Amino acid sequence: MSVPATSANLGPGFDCMGIALQMYNDIELETGVPFEILIEGEAAHLLPTDRSNAVIVAIDRLLDEIGATRVPRDWRVRMVNRIPVGSGLGSSASAIVGGLVLGNALAQAFQPECAISTADVLRIATDMEGHPDNVTPALLGGATLSCPDDIGTHTFAVPIPSHLHFVVAVPYFALYTEESRKVVPTSFPRSAAVFNAAQSARLILALTTGNLSLLRGGFGDKLHEPYREPLIPGYADVKRLALHAGALAVTLSGAGPSMLAWCDEEHKAWEVADQMTLAWREHGIACEAHVFQPVASPTVVREVALG
Amino acid sequence: MSVPATSANLGPGFDCMGIALQMYNDIELETGVPFEILIEGEAAHLLPTDRSNAVIVAIDRLLDEIGATRVPRDWRVRMVNRIPVGSGLGSSASAIVGGLVLGNALAQAFQPECAISTADVLRIATDMEGHPDNVTPALLGGATLSCPDDIGTHTFAVPIPSHLHFVVAVPYFALYTEESRKVVPTSFPRSAAVFNAAQSARLILALTTGNLSLLRGGFGDKLHEPYREPLIPGYADVKRLALHAGALAVTLSGAGPSMLAWCDEEHKAWEVADQMTLAWREHGIACEAHVFQPVASPTVVREVALG
Repeated sequence: MSVPATSANLGPGFDCMGIALQMYNDIELETGVPFEILIEGEAAHLLPTDRSNAVIVAIDRLLDEIGATRVPRDWRVRMVNRIPVGSGLGSSASAIVGGLVLGNALAQAFQPECAISTADVLRIATDMEGHPDNVTPALLGGATLSCPDDIGTHTFAVPIPSHLHFVVAVPYFALYTEESRKVVPTSFPRSAAVFNAAQSARLILALTTGNLSLLRGGFGDKLHEPYREPLIPGYADVKRLALHAGALAVTLSGAGPSMLAWCDEEHKAWEVADQMTLAWREHGIACEAHVFQPVASPTVVREVALG
Repeated sequence: MSVPATSANLGPGFDCMGIALQMYNDIELETGVPFEILIEGEAAHLLPTDRSNAVIVAIDRLLDEIGATRVPRDWRVRMVNRIPVGSGLGSSASAIVGGLVLGNALAQAFQPECAISTADVLRIATDMEGHPDNVTPALLGGATLSCPDDIGTHTFAVPIPSHLHFVVAVPYFALYTEESRKVVPTSFPRSAAVFNAAQSARLILALTTGNLSLLRGGFGDKLHEPYREPLIPGYADVKRLALHAGALAVTLSGAGPSMLAWCDEEHKAWEVADQMTLAWREHGIACEAHVFQPVASPTVVREVALG
């Protein structure tokens, strides 16, 4: 199975919006074999290969929570990771969602009466991750809006125009979410709250009408990006060059440090990618820039082969 | 000409969203006659009939600002007012927009090189009213989103589904905007800011996709309504009965005290109107409830007859 990278916040959608991107971690699981974890790709040498591995924790959590006592717990799991860790692209959400979806597929195969709905998978994923921003698009695909209220979270799918392209510029320095979270204030002036309500409305208007030009000029956020900017050397220059090269808007990806440029044409996106890379290089920071379209489809296990 | 009532805020769109409703103040202006103001309808006996009348102030302001020195300043102005004053239905915005649009039509007739664009009329209207929430839909029609930024306000038209109906329940007690403004805090916890950004996004999603059922359950606001509720006797009961009768959501109209129930069918809207009236009556408050669809078209002078 493949679990997409996700970009949360999307500027003004702080703590409530996210989108799945066409960059995947692949996970394959076999049963009827001794327990073994094989990891290739991003951070392969840093990740645990025992039951404390985040994917395995999620599978076990799901099987425990649904009481799937007849599902075997020894698997060979192979992972090919492409989502960089600590870059604001939802690598942790991808592990959680991958594990939970695999766990539910195992239940479906070995003890189908225990298998749970996607809504329940999402609830567990949100609980494990601590917030719905990345796990929701990682599970459902597309762009998602999560509205918290007193009794839970309402989740909505947001239509995405087919000409939307993102540049995801990933600089080679890690910024841990913890650190980037700490700098965000716990209270805000009324003007910032009103600004973000207006801008998140504007974002949905642009996405649902397909008129991405609505994002030009003044689209942005006042709840987190201004506070996170100082943690990201080169932020202002990367943003300026991206806009100059034709990006409609530039936002942080998650808590950063990756930056997301919003483009309405693929060829512009590649030009923007070059400029963002260049801007970071001038700050002495290596950067890998990708051009992605959003992922439209949900994360599912395509094939279950019983071992 | 007819200038519509408007409902600002729309719940989470505090200080940035508004909608024009099919309830109008009519204004007719004749030139070539001695100055005279005739007012019928709402608050007719309370409104000044000299140059301090809000409509006249707006006409004069526009003519002064554009330097329209050759436009005659003596008019007979007849007004038929239907928008209740001090009820949160934009009566003040209606006077400003009416006056400015009439002033610009006078310029067009007598000194066309001075006439200004709709965008400039909107700028003056916003300046006179102090905020764009009501004057924008009063001028442009439909639902509008005003995004303030450091250099001005970006205004966007929001598509409205044709099955959207509003109940506007107007209780017979006045709540002055000033008073209702004072109770709104100047700063908010992060959770309230995030809540409103998510909910305003949800509102735009419901309007643009036409899926009004997205407003069911938990749609609302945490920036102003909870603070204004105590100023409005019966608020909780009116809301509860409206929801029970089939309203998708209930929000304050502007700063209140009028309340707006969102409905997806006209027959449900009438039932909701009855229930809201009943609920207020049980609190000893008389109430007039109307069912409106939004206005789609902008406010214009249909005919200019030179006196």
